[in-house]
Amino acid sequence: MAKLFMFEKPLGMRDMLPHLYERKNTVRLLMEEEIKKWGYQFIQTPMLEYYETVGSASAILDQQLFKLLDQQGHTLVLRPDMTAPIARVAASRLLHKGLPQRLAYSGSVFRAQQREGGRPAEFEQIGVECIGDETISADGEMIALMISTLQTAGLSNFRISIGHIGFVNELFTQILGTEERAETLRRFLYEKNYVGYREHVKSLLLSSIDKQRLLRLLDLQGGQETIIEAYNIIENERGKESLEQLTELWNVMKDYDMTENIHFDLSLISHMNYYTSVLFEVYAGNVGFPIGNGGRYDCLLKKFGKETVATGFALRIDRILEALGEWRKDSPVHCILFSDERRKEAFNKAAKERENGKRIVLQNINGVKNIDDCTNEFSDVSFLIGKGEKEQR
Amino acid sequence: MAKLFMFEKPLGMRDMLPHLYERKNTVRLLMEEEIKKWGYQFIQTPMLEYYETVGSASAILDQQLFKLLDQQGHTLVLRPDMTAPIARVAASRLLHKGLPQRLAYSGSVFRAQQREGGRPAEFEQIGVECIGDETISADGEMIALMISTLQTAGLSNFRISIGHIGFVNELFTQILGTEERAETLRRFLYEKNYVGYREHVKSLLLSSIDKQRLLRLLDLQGGQETIIEAYNIIENERGKESLEQLTELWNVMKDYDMTENIHFDLSLISHMNYYTSVLFEVYAGNVGFPIGNGGRYDCLLKKFGKETVATGFALRIDRILEALGEWRKDSPVHCILFSDERRKEAFNKAAKERENGKRIVLQNINGVKNIDDCTNEFSDVSFLIGKGEKEQR
Repeated sequence: MAKLFMFEKPLGMRDMLPHLYERKNTVRLLMEEEIKKWGYQFIQTPMLEYYETVGSASAILDQQLFKLLDQQGHTLVLRPDMTAPIARVAASRLLHKGLPQRLAYSGSVFRAQQREGGRPAEFEQIGVECIGDETISADGEMIALMISTLQTAGLSNFRISIGHIGFVNELFTQILGTEERAETLRRFLYEKNYVGYREHVKSLLLSSIDKQRLLRLLDLQGGQETIIEAYNIIENERGKESLEQLTELWNVMKDYDMTENIHFDLSLISHMNYYTSVLFEVYAGNVGFPIGNGGRYDCLLKKFGKETVATGFALRIDRILEALGEWRKDSPVHCILFSDERRKEAFNKAAKERENGKRIVLQNINGVKNIDDCTNEFSDVSFLIGKGEKEQR
Repeated sequence: MAKLFMFEKPLGMRDMLPHLYERKNTVRLLMEEEIKKWGYQFIQTPMLEYYETVGSASAILDQQLFKLLDQQGHTLVLRPDMTAPIARVAASRLLHKGLPQRLAYSGSVFRAQQREGGRPAEFEQIGVECIGDETISADGEMIALMISTLQTAGLSNFRISIGHIGFVNELFTQILGTEERAETLRRFLYEKNYVGYREHVKSLLLSSIDKQRLLRLLDLQGGQETIIEAYNIIENERGKESLEQLTELWNVMKDYDMTENIHFDLSLISHMNYYTSVLFEVYAGNVGFPIGNGGRYDCLLKKFGKETVATGFALRIDRILEALGEWRKDSPVHCILFSDERRKEAFNKAAKERENGKRIVLQNINGVKNIDDCTNEFSDVSFLIGKGEKEQR
C-alpha cells in the first residue's frame, strides 16, 4: 500500500473553498427560510447511527455504507440518508399527538464510492418529512413546497416527474404473476434503460395484448391526459385507485397554481425501495442527475414501532448549485493595514465599519511579506502607518 | 451482545429537537456573521480524513478517534478537530501569497466516549485560524474576535485565561533539566490538580529556591501586574521573551478596549499539544468546562510541508448554549385547517401570509385525527371548512 501524500483526502471527499462555501450557505439559508415558512420544524440527528437500527432501515445499498465498530462491538454507520434517522426520532419522541408532524433537516449524508473522480462520498441534503397525514393534500404539499423551495433558491428551469410505484407494481404483478419477474422489469426502468426494457418485454411469454400494455407504460408521460390513457392498460381496482390518487394530486397542484413545472411519468422508479405510492424526482438545467426526489413511504415508520404513514422529499445542495451555474462576485472585504503606532486608531476605525455591516480585515503591516498581494487580495486597502495623522489610501 | 432497541443511538450521539435546533442555529448564524465582519472566510472540509495525514497531525488522543477502513485498505478517521484539516487545505491550496490567510469554519467534530451519560461524541465547533502572521497583533486579534463573537451570541458573563506555553516550558526545562520531569508537572497543571502539583514539587530533589519558583507559578494569575511578578521566577532570555510577548498582548487588548474579560494565568496548559506560545481558554457562567480555547501553533503547518506560523481559536456551540441558559419562546406557527372544498382559498391565504414572512402550516382536516391537538400545538388556528364563505376562527 503506497504511502499517502499529506494533502490527500479519502475517496469522494471534497473541500469547499470560500467562494463556493459562501454561495452554498446563502442558497441553503434561503431554502431553510422557505421551508420554515411552511411550518416545518428543523431537527438534527447524529452523523453516526447503529447499523442494526437505522442502517438496516435505510434504502441505501450495503456496499455504499461507511461502517465502523464501536468499543462495545456494535457496527455503526455514517448516515446514508436522512429519512430513516428522522423516522427514528419521530417514532421515539414526537408522534405522541393525533396530529401530522412536519419535520425538516439540512445536513451531510455519506455513501462510499468505488473510484476517484466519481460521485461525492459526502454530500448535503435539505429536505422535509410530513409524518401521519394520509391525504393527497400531503403529497401535493411535498411537491408544492419543493417547487417553492427551488424557486426561492433562484432556480426556475426545472422539471418534476411524478409517478406512482403502486400503479407499476399492480400492473406488473397482474401481468407477470411473480415478484421476481416484476423486479427484473423495475430494474430496467430504474436504470432508465428503455431499450433493454422493450427487448425484455418482447422476449417474455405473454399475449401480445399484455406485451402492448407493458410497452405502453413507457409512453405514459405528460400532463393530465396521461392519467386517462393509463386507465386503458390497468384492469384491477388497486391499480385504478393509484390513478385516482394521481388525478386528485393534479387537482391539488392546480389549486396551488403549480402545474407548470410538473408532468407525469408512470414508468418512474426510485432507488429508494421504501416508497409505497406517489413518488417524484426533479431535474434541472443540464445537470445529469436528479437534483432531488421524494415520495410516500407508508411502511418505514413500522420498522420503528409506529404504524404511521409519511411522505417527504430531499434536495441535493451540490446539484442545485451546479444547476444555478456561475455566481455573482463575493462580498467585498476591506483591509486596514496598520503599524503599531496607529494600532488603536485602526481598531476604532474597523469597529465602526463593522457596526455598519462591512467586512474589515485588520492587518499589522509587520505580518505582511508582500504589500502588493494585499492590494490584489482585497476590494479596498487603507493604510494607517507611521505617525502621520492623515489616512493614506 | 444484546440486541439493540430500534430507538437506540451510538454512545455519546444526540438528537437535537426543534426548539434547541432553532436556538442553536440562531446563535451559530450570529457568530458566523460577526466572524465574517472581521474578514474571515469560511471553508468546509470533509467529515472523513486519512488517519495517516490529518488524523496523526491532530492533537486528539488515539483512543478518542473514530476509525474505519476504506476499500483501499487505508484507515480513515472522523475528524476529531478542525485545525488539522484547515491546515491541510491552507497548505495545499491557499498559501500561495505573501499574505496572512484568515479562515473560519463551523461544523461537527467527533471524539469517541467510553461511557453513556458522559460527554457528547459529536459536537459542533465554530472557529478561526489566522495563518502566516507572526505578530502579537494576530494573537490579540484571536482574543478580540473571540470576545466579540461571544458577545454577539448574547454572552456577557465569561472570563478568558491567557497563558504562554513557551514560558512554562522554559521554566520547567531550566529547573528540572529533563523533558520527562517537565511532562509530569505539565500533566498536573493540565488536570488543574494543584494539590498534586504542590506535593510533587515538594518531593523533588531541588534547592528550596527552585521549589519556590515552581510553586509561585501557581500564583501567577491576574492582570498586568502578573507579568511583572513573573519576571522574578524566570532567568533565561527565551523565558523573558515570552513575558515581553504577553506584555505586548496586554497593550494590544487595551487598544481594543477589551481587558475587562481577560486575565493572565501563567500555569495554563492546553490538551492541544501543538500550541507553541500564547494560549488561552474561556469559561462562562456555571459551565464546568471551557466553552472555547485557542492559541498559537507555529509548527503544525510544517507537517503539511509549509514553514508557516499560525494562531486560532475554537468555540463549542453546545457549551455556549448551556452558558446562555433558557431561551425565549419559539417562533409562532399559524395553522390553516381546510376541507377539500375550500382548498384553493386556503392555499391562497397561506401564500399571502408566507410572503409577509409568517410561518403557516396548511393542514387538510382529513389528515387530523384529533382537532384539539391542533389548537394546542399552534399559536393560532384558522378553519376553512365546509362551503361557507366566512372564515371560522
